[in-house]
Amino acid sequence: MPRYALKIEYDGRPFCGWQTQAAQKSVQGAVEAALARLEPGLPRIGAAGRTDTGVHATGQVAHCDLTRDWNPFRLIEAINHHLRPLPVAVLACAKVEDDFHARFSAHERRYLFRVLARRAPPTFEAGQIWHVRHRLHLAPMQQAARHLIGTHDFTTFRASKCQAPSPIKTLDTVEISVHDVPYGQEFHFALRARSFLHNQVRSIVGTLERVGAAAWTPDDVKTALEARDRTACGPVSPPDGLYLTAVGYAKDPFANLDEQAQPD
Amino acid sequence: MPRYALKIEYDGRPFCGWQTQAAQKSVQGAVEAALARLEPGLPRIGAAGRTDTGVHATGQVAHCDLTRDWNPFRLIEAINHHLRPLPVAVLACAKVEDDFHARFSAHERRYLFRVLARRAPPTFEAGQIWHVRHRLHLAPMQQAARHLIGTHDFTTFRASKCQAPSPIKTLDTVEISVHDVPYGQEFHFALRARSFLHNQVRSIVGTLERVGAAAWTPDDVKTALEARDRTACGPVSPPDGLYLTAVGYAKDPFANLDEQAQPD
Repeated sequence: MPRYALKIEYDGRPFCGWQTQAAQKSVQGAVEAALARLEPGLPRIGAAGRTDTGVHATGQVAHCDLTRDWNPFRLIEAINHHLRPLPVAVLACAKVEDDFHARFSAHERRYLFRVLARRAPPTFEAGQIWHVRHRLHLAPMQQAARHLIGTHDFTTFRASKCQAPSPIKTLDTVEISVHDVPYGQEFHFALRARSFLHNQVRSIVGTLERVGAAAWTPDDVKTALEARDRTACGPVSPPDGLYLTAVGYAKDPFANLDEQAQPD
Repeated sequence: MPRYALKIEYDGRPFCGWQTQAAQKSVQGAVEAALARLEPGLPRIGAAGRTDTGVHATGQVAHCDLTRDWNPFRLIEAINHHLRPLPVAVLACAKVEDDFHARFSAHERRYLFRVLARRAPPTFEAGQIWHVRHRLHLAPMQQAARHLIGTHDFTTFRASKCQAPSPIKTLDTVEISVHDVPYGQEFHFALRARSFLHNQVRSIVGTLERVGAAAWTPDDVKTALEARDRTACGPVSPPDGLYLTAVGYAKDPFANLDEQAQPD
């Protein structure tokens, strides 16, 4: 059976997350249902990141085994046809080696977290951006983030239900930028690591937001990290602004495929 | 009664348009209902542009007469509180002279039309951008647009039900730009005029799209304009990508107010 890697974009609002859960609408379930229209009786598909309820993706990666030898471009078109009208779309597809595994072959995940700081609530992006009604200050957040870069015990910043065997992770980057928008500002937090703990990004962003609001000092974040204690964490941010943007592999399965999904 | 000008942003998807219509949900109705929570029995409010069903705004302007002397900042907060959870928000507010009229004092309207050209459908912006599955070519659209700039009889480009007394309008600018997005391109059409005919922007963009797709030549647009015949128009675009972005007045009521709606 040929194996295919799929790059998937989705708006997480209507879903219980990536992973199928009994009686709930999942992104995995949506993609599997579309694939079942093409080839009935397929095995379950796996993805690089099991995003939570309400979390979005612009670059999720999954793999699936199909019996037929599909032209990748036609496969994209067929899956997207059957996904309608759900807010899920396959952006790219590539035939890969049998040992390619979307999750276990991945050596890097990138997340973006978007925060809108303005008085008025978001209208076009409700649920797609975290709305705070107060100003945020960039420099202290950047200063605080530097304490988190590198290899640390991230017990403070992981969900109590996190099932990872170890709380030690290496955070490669936390880049924070600000963009003026009418009557407010939009902040982008870009995080990169080999892998993340459960709720790690939302725990970090929620804590850094407290620093941006001047409720915490940058050093408070260092103290919280060193406490290795979940109760030392700041408030966990909502899922609204979180996007899985990219998954890295030793050999990018989608390299040189940028043109395949372009309009004719 | 003091008069206030309001700058309003809204996602047009759930609404029948700006204007109140029997038994339908309008933006005007939503804002009036919020105002009625503050001061019962208010007269109807008027807006600069009566946007159609599904059309959005980032800079609609309306005016209202209130009995109380409101602090503009507090008025914004109170209206936005009562607008929840609808995708409508007041961004700015200013006390204005009694002779200020959102519609009749306006001497300029600006619209943005967004088109996504990629194979996969939009996920985050369904209904907020016009999706076409084929490539569009920028230069011929720009060339065609030049035929439309200036003062013309726009009979070809107005809805048959348009109630304007004259089909003659002056189109100041049609600026078309392209922005790369993953696996596709996004086109922006920025139009500016003193006022527009009913469906004029969507008729123009729908026709220019045919030029971008190489189904029409730029000269075909000149021929269509000169025909002064509604049946000579290209297909009218859907409302999805259309935004009223700004309304111009001799004296901008919102000048120097940029800070008022900023987070503390």
